[in-house]
Amino acid sequence: MGYNVGLLGLGTVGTGTAKIILDAVGRHPLLETVSISRVGVRNLDKARDVKFADGVLTDDLDAIVADPSIDIVVELIGGVDTALKYILAAIAHGKHVVTANKAVISRHGDEIFDAANAKGVYVMLEAAVAGGIPVLAPLKQALGVNRINRITGIINGTTNYILTRMKDEGADFAAVLADAQHLGYAEADPTADVDGLDAADKIAILASLAFGGRIQLDDVSCEGIRKISAADIAYAKNLGFTIRLLAIACGHRPDSGAMPDEIELRVHPTLLPAHHPLATVEGVNNAVLVEADPLGEVMLYGPGAGEGATASAVVSDIVSIVAALGTETAQQASADNPLLRWDRDSYIRVAPMADLVSRFYVRILTQDRPSVIGHIGMTFGQHGISLESVVQIDVHDRGAEIVAITHEVREGEFRKALDELLTLDEVSDVPSVLHVW
Amino acid sequence: MGYNVGLLGLGTVGTGTAKIILDAVGRHPLLETVSISRVGVRNLDKARDVKFADGVLTDDLDAIVADPSIDIVVELIGGVDTALKYILAAIAHGKHVVTANKAVISRHGDEIFDAANAKGVYVMLEAAVAGGIPVLAPLKQALGVNRINRITGIINGTTNYILTRMKDEGADFAAVLADAQHLGYAEADPTADVDGLDAADKIAILASLAFGGRIQLDDVSCEGIRKISAADIAYAKNLGFTIRLLAIACGHRPDSGAMPDEIELRVHPTLLPAHHPLATVEGVNNAVLVEADPLGEVMLYGPGAGEGATASAVVSDIVSIVAALGTETAQQASADNPLLRWDRDSYIRVAPMADLVSRFYVRILTQDRPSVIGHIGMTFGQHGISLESVVQIDVHDRGAEIVAITHEVREGEFRKALDELLTLDEVSDVPSVLHVW
Repeated sequence: MGYNVGLLGLGTVGTGTAKIILDAVGRHPLLETVSISRVGVRNLDKARDVKFADGVLTDDLDAIVADPSIDIVVELIGGVDTALKYILAAIAHGKHVVTANKAVISRHGDEIFDAANAKGVYVMLEAAVAGGIPVLAPLKQALGVNRINRITGIINGTTNYILTRMKDEGADFAAVLADAQHLGYAEADPTADVDGLDAADKIAILASLAFGGRIQLDDVSCEGIRKISAADIAYAKNLGFTIRLLAIACGHRPDSGAMPDEIELRVHPTLLPAHHPLATVEGVNNAVLVEADPLGEVMLYGPGAGEGATASAVVSDIVSIVAALGTETAQQASADNPLLRWDRDSYIRVAPMADLVSRFYVRILTQDRPSVIGHIGMTFGQHGISLESVVQIDVHDRGAEIVAITHEVREGEFRKALDELLTLDEVSDVPSVLHVW
Repeated sequence: MGYNVGLLGLGTVGTGTAKIILDAVGRHPLLETVSISRVGVRNLDKARDVKFADGVLTDDLDAIVADPSIDIVVELIGGVDTALKYILAAIAHGKHVVTANKAVISRHGDEIFDAANAKGVYVMLEAAVAGGIPVLAPLKQALGVNRINRITGIINGTTNYILTRMKDEGADFAAVLADAQHLGYAEADPTADVDGLDAADKIAILASLAFGGRIQLDDVSCEGIRKISAADIAYAKNLGFTIRLLAIACGHRPDSGAMPDEIELRVHPTLLPAHHPLATVEGVNNAVLVEADPLGEVMLYGPGAGEGATASAVVSDIVSIVAALGTETAQQASADNPLLRWDRDSYIRVAPMADLVSRFYVRILTQDRPSVIGHIGMTFGQHGISLESVVQIDVHDRGAEIVAITHEVREGEFRKALDELLTLDEVSDVPSVLHVW
């Protein structure tokens, strides 16, 4: 039995997807049952890297999602509103859907999965998180027999590339960003990447899977890397840390082992001890570290983006759907394989950042007076915050630069201490405050 | 609908498996449909970490594999012959089988899978390779849409633990092995681990999955770590390398992209560049690096052994079978899900080691004469072997110690050059020859 795929979009990932399906030799035998019957593009006259039979390419995307001969619609047009429209239309016509679109899922996943479950079709999205690395399937399957306690990801390749180069070259953010844009590793408008929004989309999806509920995207606390300076990276390195943009979802389970009542959900630059497995993830690579009981720590590492990697994940979803359909009878075909379905009913409560307990790195510009370290220490001490290390690393024309790492403290209390610090005569500015692992 | 599991064996992994299934709260909802109805043990009177209802424990294992109420038999007794007997009996009675037993699969997999496919039951073995790390499922599913070109694994925790400690402490093999035995990280008879046999079992399984054929276990070239000295580890470190016991399966595909006609299949200590992802895998951890087209490099990393990790993999297989059974009709129930089945017909040809092209590390004990490096270089040169680096690192009472790293050379030619080297007057011994990544 064969299955027909309709592709929406023939950009980088669409082209990669077509290349795999059109050249199935030496891959999973199930791929031989898959055909690309329609490909929807905006411009029919554009030169393409892949060749289709006459009539396959069309600019009528509405016709694809309604085509009775198509079993699976693969949405690779990106964006939010248009993608949502075609995904919902495909579901309404009884098509299974594969998408690489983290933005549409993190914003409209509830509506999409409700519609899909009501209609009895699968919606698969392995490519939406961590590109070619198998992450969602293991979470739904092998890792899911554990109690997952924490997921920590480097899930944005652009920011990891920038931070890696800043460390290797001692360069500043703006210079590396400009070069990354020139080389195609960063978009002309880099906001979604460098401000952490892309990572927030992805950790919302991972948290929903790991903790069995729905996530409001607005609940993800999100801080990007624009304010990281070459000085911070150098100081961190001297103290034995590497700065990485981490996306973190974690929760404490009740004694029963049931799902946590409340989780932490956040994206921010973090000082990682240099020996931490995630600290060795360099360049555009991604990695997802899963802490689970009784399993322990598992890390999944690889290319987080790119034509081949993302297409590999898209096609793996197609194959998973085809395998499931091949073992269901026609009457049964209601997308009920519990390892592929996505059922999430209630929303997960997310703890306010003020309640987070963390260590902090803080860089303070001060006047160069002998009393200054004492005053800073006393101010923190009045808020019950003890310091793990304090270093006066550099002296500028304007004064001294003091770097401190705190012991664990509630973030709300730490922010109050910071406010008070800024009222001290000797303190002229606090240019950097970063979380420490 | 519920499913009954019969456990054979209640040692470390069996206990861990029972703990997960008996305490399903907060895990994959499918686990709530799974019951342990019988547990076969040798000694009914032994104290156990888990409590079962009366009548569940039995010492009659034959009754378990024949019990009509049991759907899935989980073989955790280990060894080869007895395990094979019960696995085949379970299959003959129409049970699906889950096993953590790499030895029985690498030796008798062909017979086992033939019987299972003929009977229409699944045989699953995620726990047999790399403990709790999901490796076999991703290879069967997500990664399988790629053309897999190479699998490189650190898949024996005991040897990785020994090599890590030898490096950290500058200690010799024998001392660290003795301590590892004392601490329970190595068996009283360490042969299977330190001579690479356990890793050979596992890479045979991985190669069969990745390259779509059957493997004769005898075809795996296998060299252990007994001969690695503290000196080798120190010299390797000075040259920028870390020594790890690698298991490698790779093959060059024809232009069509079809499966390779012949593969390399080998276990041996290897000098890895210190920045290689596998070089950072320390202690008892395992990691599997998959190189695939168009995906690129993906690494799966985590605990390769231990009660919780291995049990996690066992239970993930149970859940995969239960999910597949739940979506098949009774008439259809013939274990035909192509993402779970194991179909391998023809044997894969394995290239002789003499044909391997590799760099080599060689340590040579010589008399301390000024001509000796020249003579060694000439001997290699006469065999067309050029040297990447030659270092005279240490001088003993007995003479000099010379360490050389070659450029790439066919192993057969390299061994001939070594034989000739040993005929030189100045050369007293060649205590170490190791592959270099």
